[in-house]
Amino acid sequence: MKVYPSDDKNASFVRLERGSDMLNSLTEAARELGIDAGTVQAIGAVSELVVGYYRQEEKEYLRIPFPEHLEIGSALGNVSLKDGRPFVHMHVTATRADGTTVGGHLMEGTTVFLVEAYFRTLGGPAPVRKPEEDLGLAVWQ
Amino acid sequence: MKVYPSDDKNASFVRLERGSDMLNSLTEAARELGIDAGTVQAIGAVSELVVGYYRQEEKEYLRIPFPEHLEIGSALGNVSLKDGRPFVHMHVTATRADGTTVGGHLMEGTTVFLVEAYFRTLGGPAPVRKPEEDLGLAVWQ
Amino acid sequence: MKVYPSDDKNASFVRLERGSDMLNSLTEAARELGIDAGTVQAIGAVSELVVGYYRQEEKEYLRIPFPEHLEIGSALGNVSLKDGRPFVHMHVTATRADGTTVGGHLMEGTTVFLVEAYFRTLGGPAPVRKPEEDLGLAVWQ
Repeated sequence: MKVYPSDDKNASFVRLERGSDMLNSLTEAARELGIDAGTVQAIGAVSELVVGYYRQEEKEYLRIPFPEHLEIGSALGNVSLKDGRPFVHMHVTATRADGTTVGGHLMEGTTVFLVEAYFRTLGGPAPVRKPEEDLGLAVWQ
Repeated sequence: MKVYPSDDKNASFVRLERGSDMLNSLTEAARELGIDAGTVQAIGAVSELVVGYYRQEEKEYLRIPFPEHLEIGSALGNVSLKDGRPFVHMHVTATRADGTTVGGHLMEGTTVFLVEAYFRTLGGPAPVRKPEEDLGLAVWQ
Repeated sequence: MKVYPSDDKNASFVRLERGSDMLNSLTEAARELGIDAGTVQAIGAVSELVVGYYRQEEKEYLRIPFPEHLEIGSALGNVSLKDGRPFVHMHVTATRADGTTVGGHLMEGTTVFLVEAYFRTLGGPAPVRKPEEDLGLAVWQ
């Protein structure tokens, strides 16, 4: 992982390691950078993608693997606290060789080819995620 | 609506209310936060989506409703002034249970399931939207 | 091109000229604004789009033209240094009249109808792009 911080340490570019797990690497970056609350966005390419779709009535994620080379058209998300540690929530859209797109909630199992990420701290108290029964998700309280 | 501001008030995370109209809630948030000019981005999920496609020659929006549960893969936009008030212009891409995606210009009629938004002020004079006949749209002058 | 800078010059909204080449205009904006390192994002519409898909094994871009009117659902990217000058790397997803989406690595040949961009400087030393044989791309060293 290569990190290019701003002088005031409130923002950083990060290039993730080829072959690493995209979600885990982003989480690791947030923790190394000491970001409890912030925004994160990225572009690049992956050699395989796993996303989730949340079934709102069943309150469960459907896991959707795309075992193919894809461009990351957009990866947009945030960092907040869950179980006392920085947690990355990120959604992606990815594009194929014919220009069509797929996407969803970024899950483990996504392999980095080249990912250029940008982190910026919120600069205030971090939202904390806690399970909310009504939604079936851990959300900002 | 839950608001998590930065200490300098230049940025905020905002969790929108479940069941609220996404576009109207974002506009309300921008006005409550006193943002005349800024950037806004969000991820989350909606229980229905309405987007627009601008017919550049006919100079009119086509309204495209998606009455289904969708992930918000990316929501990207800005706040500027229109008719003297903060106005949110936002585009979204959304993802389905099979990972395919749809999207367009965010319109009223989109219902929040869970939306986590991030606002950041520009910190300078706000662009002002005024109708431009050539485009048929209210754009920054 | 119309520019709306922040008072501290660390961020700007930019409205690109109708009919201009989107990638070239963004690059021109970055250079005029003196941004060596920063983030850039945009929404809007184009009258034609050209994107690339990187063939990771062949180490070459496939050029995919879409000669049609499209909304820019999201355009996300960064500015860093390549050959000593500010260089824009941007990925887009675009949406059609039926709400379906296409996208990829933004290439020359994309014509602006209306594009509202947001630039923010990193505020630190710029990453420098240099060719990396393993990837076949010019990436941050």
